[in-house]
Amino acid sequence: MCELLAMSANVPTDICFSFTGLMQRGGNTGPHKDGWGITFYEGKGCRSFKDPLPSAESPIATLVTEYPIKSEAVICHIRQANSGAVCLENTHPFIRQMWGKNWTYAHNGQLKDVHQQLSIKYHIPIGTTDSEHAFCWLLDQLHLKFAQQQPSNDELFTFIAQLSEQINRLGVFNLILSNGDCLFAFCSNNLHWITRRAPFGEASLIDAEMMVDFHKETTDKDVVTVIATQPLTDDETWQKMLPGQWQLFSLGEVIASGQTRTKSPS
Amino acid sequence: MCELLAMSANVPTDICFSFTGLMQRGGNTGPHKDGWGITFYEGKGCRSFKDPLPSAESPIATLVTEYPIKSEAVICHIRQANSGAVCLENTHPFIRQMWGKNWTYAHNGQLKDVHQQLSIKYHIPIGTTDSEHAFCWLLDQLHLKFAQQQPSNDELFTFIAQLSEQINRLGVFNLILSNGDCLFAFCSNNLHWITRRAPFGEASLIDAEMMVDFHKETTDKDVVTVIATQPLTDDETWQKMLPGQWQLFSLGEVIASGQTRTKSPS
Repeated sequence: MCELLAMSANVPTDICFSFTGLMQRGGNTGPHKDGWGITFYEGKGCRSFKDPLPSAESPIATLVTEYPIKSEAVICHIRQANSGAVCLENTHPFIRQMWGKNWTYAHNGQLKDVHQQLSIKYHIPIGTTDSEHAFCWLLDQLHLKFAQQQPSNDELFTFIAQLSEQINRLGVFNLILSNGDCLFAFCSNNLHWITRRAPFGEASLIDAEMMVDFHKETTDKDVVTVIATQPLTDDETWQKMLPGQWQLFSLGEVIASGQTRTKSPS
Repeated sequence: MCELLAMSANVPTDICFSFTGLMQRGGNTGPHKDGWGITFYEGKGCRSFKDPLPSAESPIATLVTEYPIKSEAVICHIRQANSGAVCLENTHPFIRQMWGKNWTYAHNGQLKDVHQQLSIKYHIPIGTTDSEHAFCWLLDQLHLKFAQQQPSNDELFTFIAQLSEQINRLGVFNLILSNGDCLFAFCSNNLHWITRRAPFGEASLIDAEMMVDFHKETTDKDVVTVIATQPLTDDETWQKMLPGQWQLFSLGEVIASGQTRTKSPS
């Protein structure tokens, strides 16, 4: 499997604290040592750092913890390979362009028969993971339904939730997806989130000996939501998402949410 | 304007030496201080490092000089903005996916009336540069001519040379383009290249006090071509490309070349 981390904030915010915890799970406190990647949006642009090396040992991951890149939307993934070899083209997040935006995608879980069940025509995968295949299929469906014209966020993300539910029937599909403006999270079985806002307090990482006093790092207007497969701190209350639930975040706030038909327990 | 650097090699090779020279031109020995980016292909995957900061002062650029990422195809760009603000979405190289490959593009020069002259339908730009617009137009033309089926390299790159010549009529268009397998260079007015092979010798950077003895770093079978707007070393013989000339490299060797109709001197 793997682990996901994402952030949505109303002011450019660095993710050094959360990433410091997560990167330990890539070969140190966790077994997700088959590569990692992180994408930061800055305006309409984005930049990624990726390494097929374990994050706990990666000089690039160390740079990301030490160089505070401030962003309003971040998606991060550390990988434990189950479908597709350990190599750069199989390393999340995956990024493609649609409607003049960068779309960034990271998946936790495993999907069965994805090549047979999800037929692709336009967005051809580069690597061999079930994850990228599902992303390409999702983009194909957006293209087929909306063509060159991006619909309203309501229409778009309600449709993406339906597609997520359809993919989820093939296995486990915890998803983080962003176009920079919005950050979409779909829970198959394992996603948590927390919104930090004034009055800010302290928090301690589970995976590293690090504590932060957010009060010293923020202003009263800041709103920062962090989403992760597993909570990263042990002294805050994280919200656990339900199977089939989706949430849409923008600038740190939930702007839409819903519950798709869940799978019957198998 | 800006500067370009690219590499094609028959064995995974790092570009630390050449990049150490080039990065100095981003705010130190040269005025190209409006951001920089570099893309490394590793197999079918690629990863980029980008920063809107001057390369001479960028901690990410320092990492790239110190962390030897070995690659068979690299494209790098340092920017002096003339069209589009200094921001991440306007920072080269630009990457898009087509036919199951990552296509990476970097441009030196300036194009007039690109929005009026080159009409785009499918590949919508994210930033505001003339460069990205021309890239999106080029991908649109490939899509319109070949649809879902990638043609032979001969047919493909001969057509890309024709498109390059068409774009070049709008101004100055020195281009580096790669899909990982091949590296295409089109000269508008300013591109040089050098192929290093056995017997290897020494080389000294123009922009930094650094000398390398390639004999110690290579085997007799290695073939490494470096392409740059301006030569990076002062004790080797670089080939100067002619206006309208294009070269296609793969695994360090020239595999095709041609001469398009050049502009009449203006």
